[in-house]
Amino acid sequence: MPFHAHAALAKGAPLEPFSYEPEALGPNDVELEVTHCGLCHSDIHLIDDGWGRSKYPQVPGHEIVGKVAAVGSAVAHLAVGQRAGVGWQRSACLQCDLCLGGEENLCRKQQATCMGHHGGLADRIRIDGRFVFEIPDAMESAVAAPLLCGGVTVFAPLRRFAVGATSSVAVIGIGGLGHMALLMLKALGCEITAFSSSAAKKDEILAMGAHAFASTTDPQDIRKHFGRFDLVLSTVHARLDWISYLQTLRANGTLCLLGMPPGVIQFPPALLVTGHRSITGSDIGSRKVIREMLAFAARHRIAPQIERMPMAEANAALTRLRGNQVRYRIVLEN
Amino acid sequence: MPFHAHAALAKGAPLEPFSYEPEALGPNDVELEVTHCGLCHSDIHLIDDGWGRSKYPQVPGHEIVGKVAAVGSAVAHLAVGQRAGVGWQRSACLQCDLCLGGEENLCRKQQATCMGHHGGLADRIRIDGRFVFEIPDAMESAVAAPLLCGGVTVFAPLRRFAVGATSSVAVIGIGGLGHMALLMLKALGCEITAFSSSAAKKDEILAMGAHAFASTTDPQDIRKHFGRFDLVLSTVHARLDWISYLQTLRANGTLCLLGMPPGVIQFPPALLVTGHRSITGSDIGSRKVIREMLAFAARHRIAPQIERMPMAEANAALTRLRGNQVRYRIVLEN
Repeated sequence: MPFHAHAALAKGAPLEPFSYEPEALGPNDVELEVTHCGLCHSDIHLIDDGWGRSKYPQVPGHEIVGKVAAVGSAVAHLAVGQRAGVGWQRSACLQCDLCLGGEENLCRKQQATCMGHHGGLADRIRIDGRFVFEIPDAMESAVAAPLLCGGVTVFAPLRRFAVGATSSVAVIGIGGLGHMALLMLKALGCEITAFSSSAAKKDEILAMGAHAFASTTDPQDIRKHFGRFDLVLSTVHARLDWISYLQTLRANGTLCLLGMPPGVIQFPPALLVTGHRSITGSDIGSRKVIREMLAFAARHRIAPQIERMPMAEANAALTRLRGNQVRYRIVLEN
Repeated sequence: MPFHAHAALAKGAPLEPFSYEPEALGPNDVELEVTHCGLCHSDIHLIDDGWGRSKYPQVPGHEIVGKVAAVGSAVAHLAVGQRAGVGWQRSACLQCDLCLGGEENLCRKQQATCMGHHGGLADRIRIDGRFVFEIPDAMESAVAAPLLCGGVTVFAPLRRFAVGATSSVAVIGIGGLGHMALLMLKALGCEITAFSSSAAKKDEILAMGAHAFASTTDPQDIRKHFGRFDLVLSTVHARLDWISYLQTLRANGTLCLLGMPPGVIQFPPALLVTGHRSITGSDIGSRKVIREMLAFAARHRIAPQIERMPMAEANAALTRLRGNQVRYRIVLEN
């Protein structure tokens, strides 16, 4: 039986119904009956070939939650009927030093859910079960979907940098990723500052737990926060005044890039030597961290603020996403 | 009784004999009868007003070892007659969060030994005893001098990044700091790569413990080392191909700047996101780390390769230093 998906048939094209015959279910594979799929800016990059690696038909969707419909002979951790989900990564070599060390998300042979394979805007998906995660009972499926990619992308650096209740953390860009970061930082008990280009979001952002709101575009507003943060998470894909943001760090503080802004980042080296400031990046999260994040989010009832739309309206959803109208994540439902 | 020093009386001037009356010995102060003082490129910056903060007469010298000649009423850890030394830092507020956390080297009110005060090219110096360190019995004074600034500058990041026998570490620039880094890395049991602009140093560098020698200026030579290092320590004050050096890092690797190269550092952000690479800086070392370094160096018989010259020949020594002729550190002796 073919799977029924929504695909871009050419670069930048609207999605159209698209059916394909799945590959045979391998011993480690799992088949999910998709119930929910989050939409993320990366899906637009996939449709538009923004990274130059898309193949058409391109079925986007990599924040997938569903019901296990079939499991391969070697799958021991999931059973038919369970709720389970998949994020950005569909596989890794599981043999390199990074994989052996529990950092499959850095594996050089990793494969993305929607690159070279069909993603989650579909009724079903078959995928390596070693990258499929059980959803905690206490968590709604629509809530779990955006956590599987966007959620772990912001959670992983919080773990890496041991962020806790004494930490002062800033988030640049309060969209899909950024708003999940605020919710997690609140649960961790941090002092939270939100940098956003949208003053219209201020009240919502403060309600999510931010203690201070600042403009990403007003140099004076950034300057007020010089020397304040242990960690600055940047979720934006825009050119920013990186020199000013580096100066918002305390001694030993880190500026961590989650998105890849265009152009180059440049700064005088003294900004790093004085005060031992660091700049680094973070790329999704490992399987262990995804599990930790799901348990953490379930326990703290962390629920991304979502707009639910029927999967059949995927094109309308993409239009809202392209127009930066979404607050703060769209989840498509079958 | 006046102290007799060697001072630059104006920007860039040769040193001349200079006498001054010391301040009264405060309760926390220590007076050292200087026996040895290392010479470092920072001393040239001080003489030449390279940082725009020099005051004349400028007495350089901040790798000072001597005999305790007097101690203030509150000094409990040093006694008259003991060997002791001072590095780059002469004081800190000892009350800010960084000082309380044992990171006085990052204190915003820290004072440098030779800035606004007279340094170690002298027969005596009076200085805050809380920044004066006992020299281990097993360590020669001439060996201790360069360790007190250059030595701790390279040792501190090795501690911060938990460098050990499984680490692969590169050092860029094998001069005063760089050669001490090689000796320490050898004692730590690391895999060591040395980047130098001087092919003439190759045999000496390999004898110091480097497993591989590479040219700082040959892009092909740098490229051979892509993806190899957990830590790259840059000791140079030159513009380098930072994008290539970032690519020599393994996943989770760090490029740490010890010197402040001119201009800006720039790179595409993807270099940090992919593989979780970091770039940071390091500034001398805390008092705790200085003590650890002295004990470590004594136990492992780490001895910088030095040229000994009489302090009376300080100008000749500076000429050798300005000409990059020193291998690898000059220590002036009274």
